[in-house]
Amino acid sequence: MNVPWRMVRSLFNKKEREVSELTVAEGPSPVLEAISSKVQLTMIVVSDGFRASDKWGEVQKALVGYPVPVETHIVQDSLYERMSGTRSPQGVLCVLPFPFMFHSIRPPSSWKRSLYVAGIDIQDPGNVGVLTRTAAAAGASEMLFLGYSADPYSPKCIRASAGAVFTIPLRTHSDPVTAISLLAQSGVRVYAAVPSGGIYPWEAEFTGDCGILLGNEGRGLRPETVLKLGEGLSVPMPGGIESLNVSAASAMILYEAVRQRMVTCLP
Amino acid sequence: MNVPWRMVRSLFNKKEREVSELTVAEGPSPVLEAISSKVQLTMIVVSDGFRASDKWGEVQKALVGYPVPVETHIVQDSLYERMSGTRSPQGVLCVLPFPFMFHSIRPPSSWKRSLYVAGIDIQDPGNVGVLTRTAAAAGASEMLFLGYSADPYSPKCIRASAGAVFTIPLRTHSDPVTAISLLAQSGVRVYAAVPSGGIYPWEAEFTGDCGILLGNEGRGLRPETVLKLGEGLSVPMPGGIESLNVSAASAMILYEAVRQRMVTCLP
Repeated sequence: MNVPWRMVRSLFNKKEREVSELTVAEGPSPVLEAISSKVQLTMIVVSDGFRASDKWGEVQKALVGYPVPVETHIVQDSLYERMSGTRSPQGVLCVLPFPFMFHSIRPPSSWKRSLYVAGIDIQDPGNVGVLTRTAAAAGASEMLFLGYSADPYSPKCIRASAGAVFTIPLRTHSDPVTAISLLAQSGVRVYAAVPSGGIYPWEAEFTGDCGILLGNEGRGLRPETVLKLGEGLSVPMPGGIESLNVSAASAMILYEAVRQRMVTCLP
Repeated sequence: MNVPWRMVRSLFNKKEREVSELTVAEGPSPVLEAISSKVQLTMIVVSDGFRASDKWGEVQKALVGYPVPVETHIVQDSLYERMSGTRSPQGVLCVLPFPFMFHSIRPPSSWKRSLYVAGIDIQDPGNVGVLTRTAAAAGASEMLFLGYSADPYSPKCIRASAGAVFTIPLRTHSDPVTAISLLAQSGVRVYAAVPSGGIYPWEAEFTGDCGILLGNEGRGLRPETVLKLGEGLSVPMPGGIESLNVSAASAMILYEAVRQRMVTCLP
C-alpha cells in the first residue's frame, strides 16, 4: 500500500485540515500520548531511522493496549522529511481526525469543582501548546481557545503541548463574549488576567467552580468586552518587569488554583 | 559613515560574538529595555520602515535619558533584513558589549534575602530567555546559567527575554557543581526542581536566602551531581501529565517564592 504522503504533507496547511478534518501529531511524545489516550487514529507513519531507535519499541508497546489495529507505514527517512513539514522531523507521526474522538470514556476531572481555562486571541502556536499542557497538568476541566487564538488542533500546537491536547477537553469558539458569558451565567466565578491593578492570585477564591481568562501576548484581554466579565487578577512582579510571557503568567495562576485546592483538601 | 553591516550580521554567530565580545539586542522591547537600563551600547541601527513608526518615537524619547550620545545608523529595509539575522526582523537593533556594563549603579534587589535562580543545561534559547524574564519579574538576586545552557547573551535569548536580561545580574559557568556548592556553602538553602517525589513548593521555605535549580528540558537535573546539592521540589500535576515545560515549572516555583515573601511581609 502506498503512503499518501502528499495528503499528510497537505495537513500542515490550515485550509487543507479544515477540508479534510484531519490533523497530524508529530514526534514521540505526542504520538505516545495520542495512543495512550485512545484517541481515534487514521494512521501512523514511521521513518526507517526512527524504527531503529528505542522509542519505536515504546510506541509498539503502547499500541498493544490500543483497542483497534492502526494502519502503519514505514518510509525512508528522506520521504519522511518531505512529509513531516517541520524543521526538525522526529521520525514518527500519526494522522487523526479532529475534533478528537476517543475509543474509551475520558477519565473524570481531578476536581469536584470545575476549573476552566480560556485563552483569548493567543496567537503563538507555542503558547497555545504550552498553555494546554499546563492546564492539563493542573487537572483543568476544559481548555477553551477563543477569538483569534491559534488553532489548538494544528500540528505545531499539538507538538508544543507534548500531546497534552489529548488529555484535556478542548473547545474553540470565535466569540469570546458569548462563551464567557455562558460560563458566568452558569455560576462559574471568572477571573481575568491583567498586567496590573488586579488582586493577587492568592487573594482569589479558586476552590469553587471557577474560570481563568488569559489574553493576547502583546495586547492582553480586549478591554471593551471580555475584561468586564471577569474580576481582574495580576501576578506579582516585584522585580519591576512590566509583563510576563503568557505561559509563565498562566502557570503562576494555575499553580495558585491547584495549591488552594490541594491545601484545602488536606486533612 | 558606513554601517558595518557585515560585523552586525556576524554577531548572530556564537564564535564571532566570543571573539568580538559584542552581541545584538533586536526588536523594540529589548532595545527600549537596554536604553532604560543604561547598559553600555556600541550603536543603534534602525530601518527606514521602523523610523516611520510610533515605536521609533519611543526609542528616541528613551535615548534622551541615556547618559551619552549613541552612534545611530538609519538603513534601508532591505539592508536591515540582511543584517538582522532573524526570520522576522523588527526594524531596530542595538549592538552592545557583553558581559554587560552599565552607565549607572544597578537598582538594589527587591528583597532583603537573596533569591538565586540557576538554569542547568537549559538548551532552548526561548526557555533561557523566558526563564530570565520570569526570574527578573520575581526580583531574583541573580540568574545563573550553568553547564551546557544556551548562551543568555545570544540575540535569540535576549529577544526571548524581552530585554529582561538587562534588569537582572546574569552569570554563566560551565561547572554547575562548583557554582552550586559555593552557593550552598555560603548559607543559601538550595532547592532542586524534580519531576516527582519532591516536596510541594508551598512546603518549601523561601523566605530566607534561597536558590532554585532547574534542569534540562528533557533530562532534568543531572542526578549524579547537582541533585545531591539541593532538596527536591516538585510542582503539583494533579491532571496526570508527566512533566511541564521548564518555563511553566519555573514560573510556578518563583510565584510561590514571591507569594511567601509578599504574604510574610504584609502587616
